[in-house]
Amino acid sequence: MVVATTTTTTTGRTGRWALRGAGWRRRRVLPSRAPVGTRALRFDEYVQGLQSDMIEECEGADGSGRRFRVDAWERERGEGFGRTCVLEDGSLFEKAAINVSVIRDVLTEERARAMSERGRASIESAGGQAYEAEALSLVFHPRSPLVPTLRADVRRFKVGGSTWYGGGCDITPVYLNEDDCKAFHGHWKELCSRHSEDVYPEFKRWCDRYFYIPARGEHRGVGGIFFDDLEDGACEAYDVEAFVQEFGRGILASWLPFARERNALEFTEDQKEWQEIRRGRYVEFNLLYDRGIKFGLNGGRMESIMVSAPPSVRWRYDVVPKEGSEEARLLEVLRGKPRDW
Amino acid sequence: MVVATTTTTTTGRTGRWALRGAGWRRRRVLPSRAPVGTRALRFDEYVQGLQSDMIEECEGADGSGRRFRVDAWERERGEGFGRTCVLEDGSLFEKAAINVSVIRDVLTEERARAMSERGRASIESAGGQAYEAEALSLVFHPRSPLVPTLRADVRRFKVGGSTWYGGGCDITPVYLNEDDCKAFHGHWKELCSRHSEDVYPEFKRWCDRYFYIPARGEHRGVGGIFFDDLEDGACEAYDVEAFVQEFGRGILASWLPFARERNALEFTEDQKEWQEIRRGRYVEFNLLYDRGIKFGLNGGRMESIMVSAPPSVRWRYDVVPKEGSEEARLLEVLRGKPRDW
Repeated sequence: MVVATTTTTTTGRTGRWALRGAGWRRRRVLPSRAPVGTRALRFDEYVQGLQSDMIEECEGADGSGRRFRVDAWERERGEGFGRTCVLEDGSLFEKAAINVSVIRDVLTEERARAMSERGRASIESAGGQAYEAEALSLVFHPRSPLVPTLRADVRRFKVGGSTWYGGGCDITPVYLNEDDCKAFHGHWKELCSRHSEDVYPEFKRWCDRYFYIPARGEHRGVGGIFFDDLEDGACEAYDVEAFVQEFGRGILASWLPFARERNALEFTEDQKEWQEIRRGRYVEFNLLYDRGIKFGLNGGRMESIMVSAPPSVRWRYDVVPKEGSEEARLLEVLRGKPRDW
Repeated sequence: MVVATTTTTTTGRTGRWALRGAGWRRRRVLPSRAPVGTRALRFDEYVQGLQSDMIEECEGADGSGRRFRVDAWERERGEGFGRTCVLEDGSLFEKAAINVSVIRDVLTEERARAMSERGRASIESAGGQAYEAEALSLVFHPRSPLVPTLRADVRRFKVGGSTWYGGGCDITPVYLNEDDCKAFHGHWKELCSRHSEDVYPEFKRWCDRYFYIPARGEHRGVGGIFFDDLEDGACEAYDVEAFVQEFGRGILASWLPFARERNALEFTEDQKEWQEIRRGRYVEFNLLYDRGIKFGLNGGRMESIMVSAPPSVRWRYDVVPKEGSEEARLLEVLRGKPRDW
């Protein structure tokens, strides 16, 4: 590498951010598996504890000895802080990013209006209300094309006495392994059903709708679950925050078992190239359609946003897999009606 | 390659397009260097002739024996046609795309309203007017990181008795060679000054404004010229169509001489990696900000749009070049005030 990546302190790109160096203390505030119904902890502690646990588990699963680089940053005027954590060139992970942000700020008029228009009655459209926002988001780009990409996030937003949650977890395979799809969806179905039988079917459909590339006529991957604007206390059937916290704790277990297994298999250079071509779709979705990225661009820290981009990508013109090939089978599934796994 | 690319006929992705196979006849309607003031030819013939000449010249300059793949397509109901031409894995060109489209259709209400709001008085905002649109666009992604990427386009749009032109030509270096920047800008300054002394300074500033990535605080490259909404006959100082046609004929000569020279030089793997990292910015600009791509996504042929994407791209987290390096020098220029070359 001709280029050095910073490992200590540097300044942010936009001037609104400052990195705090790699010395962030790892907090532990929650046992790894919180029992259903636990909601005694603050959400900022929850996402930080979750991140720390995930980092430890991922470094162990990777097995290469590579560690996450930890970039702690804070907003210039103290309205927020976060950790961007990245492991590159590992054995399981070609690039893994696990980010946390904790923001305490005041709504701008522009954002307040947008949120108010989305039907959030407790938000004054003129802006000026204090809000709290916490988020954990992760993307795992595996080295092996036989391991699907994993994306997940969990978020809380509190303003004017109301609290909303969002999040999701989905996989994007390069080669379709139906057993893995079933295991992944089965994991989420089982976890969701502990809270309400309606949760999985609803959030599974939401995920299928969201991760779709209209210009390609393709779903990005084989889905998972996705939810947004879930208001705390608004649902009689289950406790929203308890569900959300258990959801976050379930992310790694939804993917790691089959990811480790497939990572042990040999793959060819042609399969690697197909992976890099498919990663192009991942970039297209993120930059053309993803709401989180569009929101982040409006003043966010660009390196923390683009850390979700795949490590290596190819765009070749009009690649059409051979009929009957494994590559063609993937496309059939992504272009068809979403399956019930 | 595990994946076959189609070389003959296939169907378009969205169903609105059909490829016509590789048998498109190469038309020649214009001598390569049209004298200033020539505007006797139809613009659809002009862009097709220009494309054919460019393909021939580029295949010669590449020298690898690789040829452009020619995909001729037409709109389903006959409202337009085009040629997407791509050369991949060449010696000079890692990926070169030269596209032409010729559309004869009727304005939708949505598009008519958007255009009318941009101040085009002859457009009825209710839609329904017949229009003609022709465009040639090209992107050259060189194999060598020592050769800058070239992007250019030239367009005409005619409706309701008025005609507008747009276009531009700019370079995106991976390593900054000031001689090349001067040669490139000098070429355009000289060509523009044959029409009016005001043209180059105005269009150069327009280019600097347009190819900017706000989220990065970076210009994409070192610019060139860019123009849009130039109305035929609205300018007393020069003949707009004559300028536009000569502009298109000047594209290859603005870049080929130094591109061939730099392509003969050795480069390192580290330099290649830096090229692939910088190509990430190219993708970010195109998918996040480029107006042409946003417009094209609304029903365009996706493979003809994404053919502009670089062949191989890397995203590493927070790459910061060593102080005083060639890589750092490039960033200083891209992050600074645009220079007068």
